[in-house]
Amino acid sequence: GHVVYMSNQEPYYSDTMMVLPQDERSGALLEIEEAEYFASDYTWVEEIELSANHVDTARKYLRRIGLKKPKIGIVGEYSMSPALYACFQKEEAFSQVEPASDIIENERIVKSDWELQCIREASRIAKKGIEAAARFARPGILDLEITAEIERVCRIAGSEFFPHYTMVSSGPDPKYHAWWWKCGQRRLQQGDMFLLDFGTMYAGYCCDISRPFIVGQPSQIQKDAFEVLKQAQEAGRKAAREGALASDVDKAVRRIYRETWPEEKSWGGGHGVGLEVHEWPFISFQKIPHDNAYEDTRLRANTVISLEPQIVIPALGKFSVEDEFVVTKTGAERLNDIPQEIIICR
Amino acid sequence: GHVVYMSNQEPYYSDTMMVLPQDERSGALLEIEEAEYFASDYTWVEEIELSANHVDTARKYLRRIGLKKPKIGIVGEYSMSPALYACFQKEEAFSQVEPASDIIENERIVKSDWELQCIREASRIAKKGIEAAARFARPGILDLEITAEIERVCRIAGSEFFPHYTMVSSGPDPKYHAWWWKCGQRRLQQGDMFLLDFGTMYAGYCCDISRPFIVGQPSQIQKDAFEVLKQAQEAGRKAAREGALASDVDKAVRRIYRETWPEEKSWGGGHGVGLEVHEWPFISFQKIPHDNAYEDTRLRANTVISLEPQIVIPALGKFSVEDEFVVTKTGAERLNDIPQEIIICR
Repeated sequence: GHVVYMSNQEPYYSDTMMVLPQDERSGALLEIEEAEYFASDYTWVEEIELSANHVDTARKYLRRIGLKKPKIGIVGEYSMSPALYACFQKEEAFSQVEPASDIIENERIVKSDWELQCIREASRIAKKGIEAAARFARPGILDLEITAEIERVCRIAGSEFFPHYTMVSSGPDPKYHAWWWKCGQRRLQQGDMFLLDFGTMYAGYCCDISRPFIVGQPSQIQKDAFEVLKQAQEAGRKAAREGALASDVDKAVRRIYRETWPEEKSWGGGHGVGLEVHEWPFISFQKIPHDNAYEDTRLRANTVISLEPQIVIPALGKFSVEDEFVVTKTGAERLNDIPQEIIICR
Repeated sequence: GHVVYMSNQEPYYSDTMMVLPQDERSGALLEIEEAEYFASDYTWVEEIELSANHVDTARKYLRRIGLKKPKIGIVGEYSMSPALYACFQKEEAFSQVEPASDIIENERIVKSDWELQCIREASRIAKKGIEAAARFARPGILDLEITAEIERVCRIAGSEFFPHYTMVSSGPDPKYHAWWWKCGQRRLQQGDMFLLDFGTMYAGYCCDISRPFIVGQPSQIQKDAFEVLKQAQEAGRKAAREGALASDVDKAVRRIYRETWPEEKSWGGGHGVGLEVHEWPFISFQKIPHDNAYEDTRLRANTVISLEPQIVIPALGKFSVEDEFVVTKTGAERLNDIPQEIIICR
């Protein structure tokens, strides 16, 4: 996503590496196609240089634009081999080499109006998928047939890609939730519930949405669980105001669980959504060494987050409600108008 | 794919890190869920340890199994931050730390009978997608509607995933080939050709297949181009025998171009196919420093490769034929029975 963000181009295929000189004259920008398994012919920007030796290309480029011994930030360092990284560090044309993805990751937390519009548009497409699932699901249908129908409808409605595995898992068996990517052969029965958790993409921007479905009528415990989820998400939404910490949002969600559904201890938070379906900030607080993504983050105006409270009821299945929200001064605003209810399939 | 290969488990979600002690007592195996943005709850193997500090977890594990100061190979190092890699290097419990993905990548080049069977099965599913596209495509249909139909049919036929972006691009405009992931809004017209290049997945194993389609009847130049592609692929197939170099296969393909279609200079080779749709070996020869994937590779019995000759005819579009082959003593054998012809849509 970094290269998309910096260049406003859209390479979906091949990892791309970007070298940014990190000093006052930092206007210059070099993109180098990352060598994955073969030299790709998917070049997509005029300034690009297909390179057999990335260090060499970067050195020559910096010389050409007249930068001497700059400090170099490597963006996309997660998809780079340690061997190549070490070569950059040893190169004498650079005074210093540092990972720099976090700089852009931090920039990306705040969305422009256009970016918000793209996420809204992705959500509008996802809504059509949800409606299609509601129409399509009935006793006898396989989980994977529902998946196929949702993706068919969303593609035609304009989804460029499915950045999130389209997850349809029905029934109470926990293996359908744990190993959802291998499941799909279960046939719906009258009274079943299933969870849909999926995303679509518009102009490179993602959404990540989840709703529970029931083939028939929800029982009281199902209604109660869903009410808790809505309350939990709403508490998170209110807490997600400009200046709040991500951990505050997480605490607000967990407080609802504690008060109303104490048996559920698994999941409070959510995550940033944008060019990637999971990006900064991480809505929780959990310090993990060497990984900036786990630092507590102060929310800014126009930060986009998903809030995804979940409840597992062993005999019934997994409930979840997930939507994207944009942070404002007074709390966050939902970026879709998908009804927040258990979706009934008839 | 490495963790799938070593553990025979199938994690599709979250990157996973594996630490292998590299000495005589190397039976021990530790898998650590990689921290990407959040600590995932998708644990899938009993020995797994969800870890907030990977270095710490690895140190404790090695102590528990009684390994003192082993040399450590890091597998999956491409998805690891340089900062974390540096922490492994500094850790005193390991005598040495080295990238080790290439060891497994090299192992994976040779497929077992079971693996071959899985690739055949993925191809069998892909065949249904190709047949569906042939039935479905007609004037007035959008490219992305064809994509959606292919994926719907393949999902229902058992494809777990689409490891290759399902690429349907019609018409002569080169932007449809260069930016295929943004296209799809073009409506087919009588006489159009379109290229389908896609893959399916069965039990974690991929196929990668391509055929040209024509709505109507192929012209002589289209027939000629396809004949060249078939000859080129056949030359590659014969050259791909046990003991040959990947570059020999590439040369055999390019020789056909040179003799019969010299204006096409772009593409000779192909690539390995298995747990990833593009894996070792790279069927060409192009030495790229710091990247073992670009080394010339000696083919072994049961190596699986794709051969994907391509021809672009500016006024007509892009032609390609791609299939998977398994290397034998006398040449390679095709792993699907999809007709090798221009596919006619009526």
